[in-house]
Amino acid sequence: MSLTNALPVDAAKAAKCASRTLATLPTSARNDALTAIHVALSQSKDEILAANARDLTAAKKAAEDGTLSLSLVSRLDLGKKGKWEDMLKGILDVRELEDPVGKVTLRTKLDEGLDLERVSCPIGVLLIIFEARPEVIANIASLAIKSGNAAILKGLGTTRLPKYGGKESTESFVAISKVISAALESTVVPNTAIQLVTTRDVIPQLLALDQYIDLVIPRGSNELVRYIKSSTRIPVLGHADGLCSIYLEHTADPEMAVRVIVDSKTSYPAACNSVETLLVEEASLETLLPPVAEALLAKGVSLRCDASSKKALTVKLSPHSSVILQDADESDFDTEHLSLTLAVKTVSTVTEAISHINIHGSHHTDAILTSSSPLAEHFMSSVDSAGVVWNTSTRMADGMRFGFGTEVGISTNKIHARGPVGLEGLMIYKYKIRGGGQITAEYGEGSGQKSFKHERLPF
Amino acid sequence: MSLTNALPVDAAKAAKCASRTLATLPTSARNDALTAIHVALSQSKDEILAANARDLTAAKKAAEDGTLSLSLVSRLDLGKKGKWEDMLKGILDVRELEDPVGKVTLRTKLDEGLDLERVSCPIGVLLIIFEARPEVIANIASLAIKSGNAAILKGLGTTRLPKYGGKESTESFVAISKVISAALESTVVPNTAIQLVTTRDVIPQLLALDQYIDLVIPRGSNELVRYIKSSTRIPVLGHADGLCSIYLEHTADPEMAVRVIVDSKTSYPAACNSVETLLVEEASLETLLPPVAEALLAKGVSLRCDASSKKALTVKLSPHSSVILQDADESDFDTEHLSLTLAVKTVSTVTEAISHINIHGSHHTDAILTSSSPLAEHFMSSVDSAGVVWNTSTRMADGMRFGFGTEVGISTNKIHARGPVGLEGLMIYKYKIRGGGQITAEYGEGSGQKSFKHERLPF
Repeated sequence: MSLTNALPVDAAKAAKCASRTLATLPTSARNDALTAIHVALSQSKDEILAANARDLTAAKKAAEDGTLSLSLVSRLDLGKKGKWEDMLKGILDVRELEDPVGKVTLRTKLDEGLDLERVSCPIGVLLIIFEARPEVIANIASLAIKSGNAAILKGLGTTRLPKYGGKESTESFVAISKVISAALESTVVPNTAIQLVTTRDVIPQLLALDQYIDLVIPRGSNELVRYIKSSTRIPVLGHADGLCSIYLEHTADPEMAVRVIVDSKTSYPAACNSVETLLVEEASLETLLPPVAEALLAKGVSLRCDASSKKALTVKLSPHSSVILQDADESDFDTEHLSLTLAVKTVSTVTEAISHINIHGSHHTDAILTSSSPLAEHFMSSVDSAGVVWNTSTRMADGMRFGFGTEVGISTNKIHARGPVGLEGLMIYKYKIRGGGQITAEYGEGSGQKSFKHERLPF
Repeated sequence: MSLTNALPVDAAKAAKCASRTLATLPTSARNDALTAIHVALSQSKDEILAANARDLTAAKKAAEDGTLSLSLVSRLDLGKKGKWEDMLKGILDVRELEDPVGKVTLRTKLDEGLDLERVSCPIGVLLIIFEARPEVIANIASLAIKSGNAAILKGLGTTRLPKYGGKESTESFVAISKVISAALESTVVPNTAIQLVTTRDVIPQLLALDQYIDLVIPRGSNELVRYIKSSTRIPVLGHADGLCSIYLEHTADPEMAVRVIVDSKTSYPAACNSVETLLVEEASLETLLPPVAEALLAKGVSLRCDASSKKALTVKLSPHSSVILQDADESDFDTEHLSLTLAVKTVSTVTEAISHINIHGSHHTDAILTSSSPLAEHFMSSVDSAGVVWNTSTRMADGMRFGFGTEVGISTNKIHARGPVGLEGLMIYKYKIRGGGQITAEYGEGSGQKSFKHERLPF
């Protein structure tokens, strides 16, 4: 790993060059590098936490001056209970994952002695733009090395987009990077495979380098992702919005409906996979909705109801509860509240629910609660989202819960990788052909011409 | 299929809407639509060829006036031997391919009664921008319907980019589209699933509709692809350049070297998978290169040689041959000649060859000719191209030759799909979770908390 204040184009060229070496290293060499990073970081805990403490002092002062939000200060803190240990454990977890490089996914005998093979390989150069969390550096370095991709890291530190004037690199970023850099010196992974760019105000330049950088991964707020998606031709992996919905159909189990909706809304309201819109079938308004609403209100959720749902709840709920119901306006159904606010809308059929989700949702994760299997299958086929779930929480959409070991992010893209993205999302493939001098002119439909065999081989 | 002169945004919205219906149709419904198209086109041969003849008359006149190239006139001609039959056969070929929709590619038991499944589904809405070939309409309509994607087709007719003033739709485009449209009326495939946009000068507007259009597929010249790649945020599938190289190592079989290099260069010089640069190992200069050069010269190939290769050939070849050798300049190694011109460069090692290809190539298809298996494997791992081939022609890189049945194009992208792209490249996936009321709050490391099982299930 190197810290560089080189020109962005030079950093990107160096990364492309290093990516070619990294792509050919065997599993053991990449795993050994992760071991070396783990050991070095363990041994340097005191100096890194000291650097982090200096960052925190400065950040707290900025928060007092009102130039920085307290949540950014909190994210910066590497001394928080369990954070350091989680960071170190994450490196070993990634090391233990199956090697995603070199997996054969197709093998065809084109002809005698002419074999085609499709084999997974790294994408090339990743650009990771991340907000205040210093542990992202160790996390991304591990993922990149494991997957054979070079990575350029650009921290936003305590800067807030789209203003670039602030402090983009903090002392903790630099301290962690220096330790990783020194650790890599003892390995065969090129030091320029992972670079922390410390040059200021270069994000627009980095985003323009599509001839060297193959994929951008923003790690941070919706605002960060939205800014990046609108500022580059390089493919961006991630999602700007997580506007998830639940459709409550009248045959759903009442107790389950309460549990699942409460979990989807309240277990982590700021998460992208939390529910934002509850679509209630008309036939559920007076039966299923009232206990769900009571449970949500008891958890402090604000309900923004359309006229029908508000009317039904006003009749069914205690006056104490119904008085705090709010009126939804149209914008509530297009808003990712990221807080304890839930929009409630009445729909007459599953078709209307599906249509609402496909138009107003963000294609992230949407759920149906019903006892009807055919209805659930119809919903899951028709809703155009990365995740479609039946009788469970929208918050299940998560790389760890899916068993992917780690997660680069959750993608709402329509190509390459969708939903929670693990190491597989950092891979592409190449076709290898091993021949014995065959030429295309020998094959064809004329007399004396050969035909391709196209025999699928096991792999 | 509909012909529309609607606003681009309305066409795109209609396509998005139709894509949702199309995505849920069973295999049989999509295949039946292809049968209906095939029957209808067969029955309308005379009127379509008559329309095409009128286009040809107008195009020939334009060619005489010097406003149109003769190659465009030739591409427009649907009456050329075998072209009509190939177009019709293509529809049935696509119909017979395995259904790419609904394939399960991962199945995990997250917990008892909580199953995760990853299943292939269509991407959504494709925008196909195509040059003069009218048969592309039937071809793309088949591929789109088979893969469950809606498609917006925009023909350039006899217009040449980047000037939009010309005639973008020809009578043949309209005639074919009308027949397909009428055929689809009798099927459950929505007519707006396939739309031919006849509105003039709307390509820039279409390319701006990234909220409705998920993928752009340009079918035409390098110039067309390059223009489109630089004009849209929508992902583009394809390649602008095909700068393929062959590395001739000194242990290569001499007779094989001649055959393979001649095939790679001369079997279709205008194809993207033809070789443009021959990298000759120093040790091959006086042994392998001269017979290769003789064979190429005999086929009319112009050799643009660096100093070392020219010197070696001047000594070894007959004066008659050596006098026609040309001097390469640096730009020859960055040029896709697309003609009977080959750049020849001397390299001292495989490392130098790999480095040259990674820097100067277009990451399309590159070959090594050698008797050494370890060297070949090293080359194939290290060259960062969609196709890496050993002891066979670069021209093997082709969807038909790979056994994919059909080909949307050859991609040099680093994400999603690389190399020859068949129906699989038009698919993405979604995650489906089928639960029984499980919530995320039940799982964790605290006492009484459950753990995920993450058991791989067969599929």
